[in-house]
Amino acid sequence: MAVRAAVAGASGYAGGEALRLLLAHPEVEIGALTGNANAGQRLGTLQPHLLPLADRVLAPTTAEVLGGHDVVFLALPHGQSAAVAEQLGPDVLVVDMGADFRLADPADWERFYGSPHAGTWPYGLPELPGGRAALEGTRRIAVPGCYPTAVSLALFPAYAAGLAEPEAVIVAASGTSGAGKAAKPHLLGSEVMGSMSPYGVGGVHRHTPEMIQNLSGAAGEPVAVSFTPTLAPMPRGILATCSARARAGVTAESVRAAYEKTFADEPFVRLLPEGQWPATASVYGSNAVQVQVALDEATHRIIAISAIDNLTKGTAGGAVQSMNIALGLPEELGLTTIGVAP
Amino acid sequence: MAVRAAVAGASGYAGGEALRLLLAHPEVEIGALTGNANAGQRLGTLQPHLLPLADRVLAPTTAEVLGGHDVVFLALPHGQSAAVAEQLGPDVLVVDMGADFRLADPADWERFYGSPHAGTWPYGLPELPGGRAALEGTRRIAVPGCYPTAVSLALFPAYAAGLAEPEAVIVAASGTSGAGKAAKPHLLGSEVMGSMSPYGVGGVHRHTPEMIQNLSGAAGEPVAVSFTPTLAPMPRGILATCSARARAGVTAESVRAAYEKTFADEPFVRLLPEGQWPATASVYGSNAVQVQVALDEATHRIIAISAIDNLTKGTAGGAVQSMNIALGLPEELGLTTIGVAP
Amino acid sequence: MAVRAAVAGASGYAGGEALRLLLAHPEVEIGALTGNANAGQRLGTLQPHLLPLADRVLAPTTAEVLGGHDVVFLALPHGQSAAVAEQLGPDVLVVDMGADFRLADPADWERFYGSPHAGTWPYGLPELPGGRAALEGTRRIAVPGCYPTAVSLALFPAYAAGLAEPEAVIVAASGTSGAGKAAKPHLLGSEVMGSMSPYGVGGVHRHTPEMIQNLSGAAGEPVAVSFTPTLAPMPRGILATCSARARAGVTAESVRAAYEKTFADEPFVRLLPEGQWPATASVYGSNAVQVQVALDEATHRIIAISAIDNLTKGTAGGAVQSMNIALGLPEELGLTTIGVAP
Amino acid sequence: MAVRAAVAGASGYAGGEALRLLLAHPEVEIGALTGNANAGQRLGTLQPHLLPLADRVLAPTTAEVLGGHDVVFLALPHGQSAAVAEQLGPDVLVVDMGADFRLADPADWERFYGSPHAGTWPYGLPELPGGRAALEGTRRIAVPGCYPTAVSLALFPAYAAGLAEPEAVIVAASGTSGAGKAAKPHLLGSEVMGSMSPYGVGGVHRHTPEMIQNLSGAAGEPVAVSFTPTLAPMPRGILATCSARARAGVTAESVRAAYEKTFADEPFVRLLPEGQWPATASVYGSNAVQVQVALDEATHRIIAISAIDNLTKGTAGGAVQSMNIALGLPEELGLTTIGVAP
Repeated sequence: MAVRAAVAGASGYAGGEALRLLLAHPEVEIGALTGNANAGQRLGTLQPHLLPLADRVLAPTTAEVLGGHDVVFLALPHGQSAAVAEQLGPDVLVVDMGADFRLADPADWERFYGSPHAGTWPYGLPELPGGRAALEGTRRIAVPGCYPTAVSLALFPAYAAGLAEPEAVIVAASGTSGAGKAAKPHLLGSEVMGSMSPYGVGGVHRHTPEMIQNLSGAAGEPVAVSFTPTLAPMPRGILATCSARARAGVTAESVRAAYEKTFADEPFVRLLPEGQWPATASVYGSNAVQVQVALDEATHRIIAISAIDNLTKGTAGGAVQSMNIALGLPEELGLTTIGVAP
Repeated sequence: MAVRAAVAGASGYAGGEALRLLLAHPEVEIGALTGNANAGQRLGTLQPHLLPLADRVLAPTTAEVLGGHDVVFLALPHGQSAAVAEQLGPDVLVVDMGADFRLADPADWERFYGSPHAGTWPYGLPELPGGRAALEGTRRIAVPGCYPTAVSLALFPAYAAGLAEPEAVIVAASGTSGAGKAAKPHLLGSEVMGSMSPYGVGGVHRHTPEMIQNLSGAAGEPVAVSFTPTLAPMPRGILATCSARARAGVTAESVRAAYEKTFADEPFVRLLPEGQWPATASVYGSNAVQVQVALDEATHRIIAISAIDNLTKGTAGGAVQSMNIALGLPEELGLTTIGVAP
Repeated sequence: MAVRAAVAGASGYAGGEALRLLLAHPEVEIGALTGNANAGQRLGTLQPHLLPLADRVLAPTTAEVLGGHDVVFLALPHGQSAAVAEQLGPDVLVVDMGADFRLADPADWERFYGSPHAGTWPYGLPELPGGRAALEGTRRIAVPGCYPTAVSLALFPAYAAGLAEPEAVIVAASGTSGAGKAAKPHLLGSEVMGSMSPYGVGGVHRHTPEMIQNLSGAAGEPVAVSFTPTLAPMPRGILATCSARARAGVTAESVRAAYEKTFADEPFVRLLPEGQWPATASVYGSNAVQVQVALDEATHRIIAISAIDNLTKGTAGGAVQSMNIALGLPEELGLTTIGVAP
Repeated sequence: MAVRAAVAGASGYAGGEALRLLLAHPEVEIGALTGNANAGQRLGTLQPHLLPLADRVLAPTTAEVLGGHDVVFLALPHGQSAAVAEQLGPDVLVVDMGADFRLADPADWERFYGSPHAGTWPYGLPELPGGRAALEGTRRIAVPGCYPTAVSLALFPAYAAGLAEPEAVIVAASGTSGAGKAAKPHLLGSEVMGSMSPYGVGGVHRHTPEMIQNLSGAAGEPVAVSFTPTLAPMPRGILATCSARARAGVTAESVRAAYEKTFADEPFVRLLPEGQWPATASVYGSNAVQVQVALDEATHRIIAISAIDNLTKGTAGGAVQSMNIALGLPEELGLTTIGVAP
């Protein structure tokens, strides 16, 4: 019996990626597709790569349209998910790809988003300690941010194993789709091709408290995070370069052993063989996470680097993976670890 | 019962794409993988995006290694397929992604390749008139070149319907993967990013006689082709801009009607709604072909434009599609029309 | 004594490129910079690459601000140049980088732009027959469109020498800066990277009548033009692939001789040695035009290909070159044929 | 009286960039151009963007050919500069764009390069404390590495002012031209477009000791450096994201004041206004360095970010700047702070 899924915000990048994955999911039947400004338009115009849905027309985002589905994926602007979710009732699985329900601490939310906190839902990063248990049977999922996904998977094993001091320095490069489909001058192709530039420097990026939450949770103590995101001239992908000072006595071998143990049975995370480093091209369009870790002997810092596709594992793929767990389906269903390369 | 497939030339772009698609094919089990210079290496090093095969090691390309499979995909340098195919025997389905068996006329082969003609195999472009019938039950398939795939699908309906005069002018832009994985200075990222440049100008590109063969076959008379390929700063994709003078009396309506009729039931070719034009990004990683056609009233020329992924529909996807037909499997099995975008 | 120059529309791509070139011009002193929506902003925010002007603030585009300069460059939306030019008086050199005064035939203008024709100014393509004479001493210059610059320079020698039949087929690829700095979704980096797509197909692009005007002028008879522009994943550059059937008796030698003779003394146009083809990367940021020509023996078509930087030779460099001629300065002053590569 | 300059290694990226800049230098006349494998070839084939030198032919790299010039730029593989320099005699200004003479400590050289140390020449980064004095009148210049240029300029003010603790964490993204023109598979356009990837992780990159040398020199004490370089999908540019913990009592104001004071009179380094961040596109093809600095209050880390063009300020522009100082010419002669953008 098919799972009937609706997507609210189907004209944007997160919504489009959710549809791309759901179309390939053997247990999902795609129901309503909604938009706001784009309601009434053909999906073939808005998402020309989704040929099987080309003739579908976007409906307005209302509880009436979204009702009657087993799962509703929300790809809405920040602050709009709570109202929609309430109207859908407790039996519908609501998968929020926005930020509204990610943070546990209302003060964090208010400081970074400047609005009242909507609440906290089970967090859709199954690879974290206790992550799967939190998702089994749930009817509400907060899909992690793309940067926190990449960063947490790169660093949490070091913190969970007590190997790293509680200050992490993170520089991550993201493809432009992470900034969404709203047309802004600095995101024009003419501006981004050939250019690397930072933004949100100095701890002000909204994904920072989410990283702190995840790493602190793994460490069992507060972890400080210095996070600098940069915009890279590519459509997709995040490369997160993370480091933290190793605690005294930590060796390259103990670091590697901890990562090997952590990821041994993970279906989507691959610790690469020593000497091979992640590349975003290798995970293009896939739900895979490539991770590598090293100990810089001179500075005694652990360097952990991960590559993900920000729209797949970083957004819609993570959402489908968590949906599978919530519904009791095989976790890997409809997802792949095979990238589109070159 | 699974189809057991081997891939010879698994370290290159065509071989890697074949593996990417075969991994997703529900009836295929991947057998031997071979290479020449790369024999003995892990696939994880050579094709880091194919995580499920990362620990496989390339064997040498010998009949012994390739024997005992139901299907063998050849991704070999020109001129090497015949010797391998002979040793495999007549019951093995041999799918040649190289050029050796595409041309019917030995003189064409010799003029453009400068070596003796190896022969002619059933041609793997099912959408051509009579294309499917030629492939049913065959044990030898010549996969078309990437440019001829894009160009033939854009123009053959005009010729098959007798709408166009027998001279076509074609300018096509290809992503760099079409030039292969051998490292040459002009293919360095530093050289190709930010640059468009032509090559093989003046009718000398080896794909020219193949286009002539296909279009002449559809027209029932010799069609002359002026073909200019250009290298575009993207990894994948072909955009083929084709035109030919319309015969007297031809109207925009008659042109559109011919294209609609031709592609109405094609699983992979989509004639876009009027006013929407193909984009290579929309077919990235998919087996889809996006086509649009218009009549330039001022010059009375038919302008037909297609977009494909050169590695998928243009090479390995076309190969799998033809394999499906040859083996009596559903033609779309293991293939998708959904692109990875943005 | 320095030439004092103002730039109206200094926040866009054409205006920014004009400033980049004028900053390097030994006889020019930069005066007023104006904008509309951006008036009051620092240029350092709008054009961060123009460091020497970073602290200049945009004034509104008024006759008062623009008055009192020797030269005024207009980079305004279509239809706005006439009103500004009138107020500046006949002694000021007005260089219009927009389309308003390019077309000689009011009917052409009205058909393609849908508004009343403002008039016709001397045309800023010195390389055309009679081109320089038309610019000497003028106080009004209509800078050509970027595509017509590339196309006319590729093909006019064939027409001027009577070598080609009067129907040209042109497919050109342009970098995204040709579409301007206004933020539109299809011009986002996420959309254009990795993608080639056509637009304005079927003779509807507004640069078409300008090409016809130039080629017909060279031929001394009406030349029909089939023009298909495509958007390429690069910030700058135009590669124009042009062809026309050669008249009977025309040989590869006669074609080459005509091009060699035409461009022998041109400071900015370089006919490449036989076998070498233009690349947009080679003219990046320069005023150079690289041209190559061949005769396709099989179809007896002349294939002429040019590469320019659409913002330099295609817009602001052409403007400065024409300004130099109008003011009696050395034509090459402040301009270069050296590209920024790789 | 013109300075006569020769370039050894004129076919590569560093040599080509040196020629691009020297062509625009009003006091330089370009003499011999040499290559090894490419000796005998036309420069027009090897560097098609350098049109004024297209007909020059590369000579072999010998003392005979290079003798008789006032300045010789060396763009040779590591380890080859010493032998050439010796033969040129003490009166010729030798500007080595390779690594051979950058490091003061022979043990550093031997550890990172595995060969005997050739010596130490005056270091071509005039902006460092004492930097200009070391270059005045010298006849030997060691041009800094591209990463050390970007990193040192971002961080040395913090160390010179005693604001930062002696451990810096640096993640830098470089365009592909930094890897040179030798054709290697991982540098193919097909591989690098759309991909970010790290390399030389864990303190093993050869530019690390050079950074340590510069920052330690500014600090007056040993500074440890954790350096991770990444390859970005663009031809040119380095974005260096650097951080170090601020010493107790350091405030955002004191950090900014130190940077403002340091760079107030620098002709090529621009501390951007608060809130504006560097972008590599803004310095494309220019000798400018854009710097921004912030204090992350939550972690009390100084975040300093710089953008340079790796081939210009990072190699050949820095070389010309230092040559100007050595020869007593105005430091800015022939160089620009204006980037080619968009």
